[in-house]
Amino acid sequence: MGHTIERIKAIQLQERIIDAELAASWIQDGMTLGLSGFTRAGDAKAVPLALIKRAETESLKVNVFTGASLGSDIDRLFAEAGIVGKRLPFQADPVMRRKINEGEMLFVDHHLSQTAEWIKAGVIEPIDFAIIEALGITEDGLIIPTTSVGNSALFVQYAKNVIVEINTAQPALFEGIHDIYDTGKQGERLPIPLTHVDDRIGVPGIPVDLEKVRGIVFTHQPDSPSTIASADEETEQMAEHLLNFLRSEVRAGRLTKRLAPLQSGIGTVANAVLQGLLDSEFDDLEVYSEVLQDAVFELIDAGKVRFASSSSITLSEEKMKQVYGNFEKYRDKLILRPQEISNHPEIIRRLGLISINTALEFDIYGNVNSTHVSGTKMMNGIGGSGDFARNARLSIFVTKSIAKGGRISSVVPFATHIDHTEHDVDIVVTEQGYADLRGLAPRERAPRIIENCVHPMYKEKMRDYYMEALARGGQTPHVLEQAFSWHAKLAQTGTML
Amino acid sequence: MGHTIERIKAIQLQERIIDAELAASWIQDGMTLGLSGFTRAGDAKAVPLALIKRAETESLKVNVFTGASLGSDIDRLFAEAGIVGKRLPFQADPVMRRKINEGEMLFVDHHLSQTAEWIKAGVIEPIDFAIIEALGITEDGLIIPTTSVGNSALFVQYAKNVIVEINTAQPALFEGIHDIYDTGKQGERLPIPLTHVDDRIGVPGIPVDLEKVRGIVFTHQPDSPSTIASADEETEQMAEHLLNFLRSEVRAGRLTKRLAPLQSGIGTVANAVLQGLLDSEFDDLEVYSEVLQDAVFELIDAGKVRFASSSSITLSEEKMKQVYGNFEKYRDKLILRPQEISNHPEIIRRLGLISINTALEFDIYGNVNSTHVSGTKMMNGIGGSGDFARNARLSIFVTKSIAKGGRISSVVPFATHIDHTEHDVDIVVTEQGYADLRGLAPRERAPRIIENCVHPMYKEKMRDYYMEALARGGQTPHVLEQAFSWHAKLAQTGTML
Repeated sequence: MGHTIERIKAIQLQERIIDAELAASWIQDGMTLGLSGFTRAGDAKAVPLALIKRAETESLKVNVFTGASLGSDIDRLFAEAGIVGKRLPFQADPVMRRKINEGEMLFVDHHLSQTAEWIKAGVIEPIDFAIIEALGITEDGLIIPTTSVGNSALFVQYAKNVIVEINTAQPALFEGIHDIYDTGKQGERLPIPLTHVDDRIGVPGIPVDLEKVRGIVFTHQPDSPSTIASADEETEQMAEHLLNFLRSEVRAGRLTKRLAPLQSGIGTVANAVLQGLLDSEFDDLEVYSEVLQDAVFELIDAGKVRFASSSSITLSEEKMKQVYGNFEKYRDKLILRPQEISNHPEIIRRLGLISINTALEFDIYGNVNSTHVSGTKMMNGIGGSGDFARNARLSIFVTKSIAKGGRISSVVPFATHIDHTEHDVDIVVTEQGYADLRGLAPRERAPRIIENCVHPMYKEKMRDYYMEALARGGQTPHVLEQAFSWHAKLAQTGTML
Repeated sequence: MGHTIERIKAIQLQERIIDAELAASWIQDGMTLGLSGFTRAGDAKAVPLALIKRAETESLKVNVFTGASLGSDIDRLFAEAGIVGKRLPFQADPVMRRKINEGEMLFVDHHLSQTAEWIKAGVIEPIDFAIIEALGITEDGLIIPTTSVGNSALFVQYAKNVIVEINTAQPALFEGIHDIYDTGKQGERLPIPLTHVDDRIGVPGIPVDLEKVRGIVFTHQPDSPSTIASADEETEQMAEHLLNFLRSEVRAGRLTKRLAPLQSGIGTVANAVLQGLLDSEFDDLEVYSEVLQDAVFELIDAGKVRFASSSSITLSEEKMKQVYGNFEKYRDKLILRPQEISNHPEIIRRLGLISINTALEFDIYGNVNSTHVSGTKMMNGIGGSGDFARNARLSIFVTKSIAKGGRISSVVPFATHIDHTEHDVDIVVTEQGYADLRGLAPRERAPRIIENCVHPMYKEKMRDYYMEALARGGQTPHVLEQAFSWHAKLAQTGTML
């Protein structure tokens, strides 16, 4: 791709170049915006920032729908400016989180594959403006996304108006790695013709009705780097436990050394666990995920991963330089897809993914809380974890067994918010060990989780709870009036111990 | 189909006719059985009963895997005989329920579409004997099922040995309504080529390796009739609320009077709600469900339902006489499929079902308990409700707002067991009204549920809980130490009031 105006190959659009301030001025109080952006990658940057600027002198509220979390501090600035009415379907900013938990803005925590259905069916607010970051626009009117696809194709299709942000700081070599497929409406669909992670089933950009393109803004601002911390002793132990589990699956004849397409959620733990594969015997791997973090590129470099499909790429600052500076090397090993496709249950079930996601806490029967601290305060959201966990071949959840120096146990008697039920959780892993819950009744699961996963600081206390529960009986024994007593104690004394 | 031996068209099998006692004698202690049977329909009858008889004088334990619940009192007799080690994936018998809750046998409560994956992958115990009810066996070695398909095809394919029970009391005209499709193993699959409820994608019977057929038993015993109660004032009110919701969807342009393929769970409430469609303006309807109860046949008779796909047919005694006595009339309007297909997320999402299932209780944020009384005691199991709710176009849960004359509220501050999370529940309905939760944040959902669905006896009490929770803040406000206080009070005093 060339520079500036050459990025707009649909000639009739070249006269629609505007500045971000003008674009922002079109947005009216009460409107709903569909922004590109997924796990800090490929987010629209200039127009949202101009809108936030405008809000310094003007009172307005908008609904903000995205792919997933935004970078460039936009969610923080949105929250500080107080201009968001409703946010959907995911966020990961500490300030926004605080505003959500204080009830100052509304957050709808939605399976990432499913927002597409709500938009197509007209269930949620219609999109007034889609604001989409792009590398450029082709002659035949395809918007070429940047480092994520997310819900962008859908926003463009269903929005009344479209604003394109052409970001010349994004690697131009990304052109060609996107594969945009439209499932169509429910009830009128054909099967999604994807049977291998490297299948191309769509077109290389987002088709747009050129009439709807109100303006094109040029920007030059890289994505925000990811904030993942490096592996530590506990994450390395968790990775080792997970590898041992996978080895046992190979021994049982249920997997080969090629494993099955891997999905790994956003965050430090999931990244560290994937890094654990680097020095393993597993080889010729495939990734079918919603986000690719540093570890996937290390695995590609090591010749361990042959192909990776995703909806976004989110890298640390250093990795971004290395990967985007040598992108020719990675281009033919990558596809970026709409999140409806990267996270689609039809595909996840068909391919039989190995799905690794992070839990905030889980309970002795394998119910997982991914979202709410002590059951009430939102962390980030469920993201794609539900899309994957329900239909994966292996649904694996990982977390350190304790937090805050041991004042919190991540394994609890009863999860204070349940995002993934006992029916959807196959394996739980902490640095203490793993528990394989498949095919087990609740009374078989509890001892296994307690003995294999709970931190020694809490093991006796948990055995006591379970013994008391057992005495009361039931398929899933509990002492209901004490089920949340650990959390109540934490609130009162600052520790569960 | 002819009588007795003519039912076995694969001639080489005719010499394998045996009696049930001999078949039962082959089953050894510790074995795992895969039995046909789904919602009391099409269950293997004679061999299980002979096995139970044998257990009177001999100590043995077997694992019992099925499609879903069994009729003919077999689950009760299994439980009373104490010969079941592990039961999977669903049951609905009061005695078995008691034994499960007393910890005398293990019950694995599994999504009905997913047992297929565990069996194919070799995750759970391998099937020693598949015992399958049939109308007959064709020349080319297809076992023709009876009134259900369930997991039968899978059991036959993966079992070491197969016993066929040819039941001459089942309506012979069922031959031809089955459509058996094998998805194959995860990772090696093609898309399931089903895009309309009446698509035939497989073969009319279960392919079997004739070598594995150890014996064929003749029986003559009808299915147990369903035990659904008739509609009452509350179920009629619930049906009316549901119809009003569907009408509002038509007004909003999201549905037409043909609606979308309907799924309705087993039980009285779901049946009554479907009956509500009889006198409605909705027409030319389709059903894509796991079980067809009386109401679906009333709708076919009334010309309201044009086609129904399912995994089983479970009728009351009277309806069975009428339908099975005139089956020619219904034959071309029905398909019975394996439960992996009737409940497959790929199909459910593609067709965009309207899914109606029964809740045991739900909470003010829309989390649904389908399985556990007061969070600990198993009722029946999750069945297919999770398969459908997660991927349906409209995921609807229905329950009466109170039980036991008002001593129990079915809407509670915090569901004591969560089978369907807030992310998977679109509409909740009680006889008080309905709450449409789509696109709402938790703080929007709670007032709507409280005002529309809670019984007046509990409304003030629930408002008080929510107000106290709100004062504490959070995305999902709760007073954790009181979250289960209604249930604790029920346990202590016999009433939540």
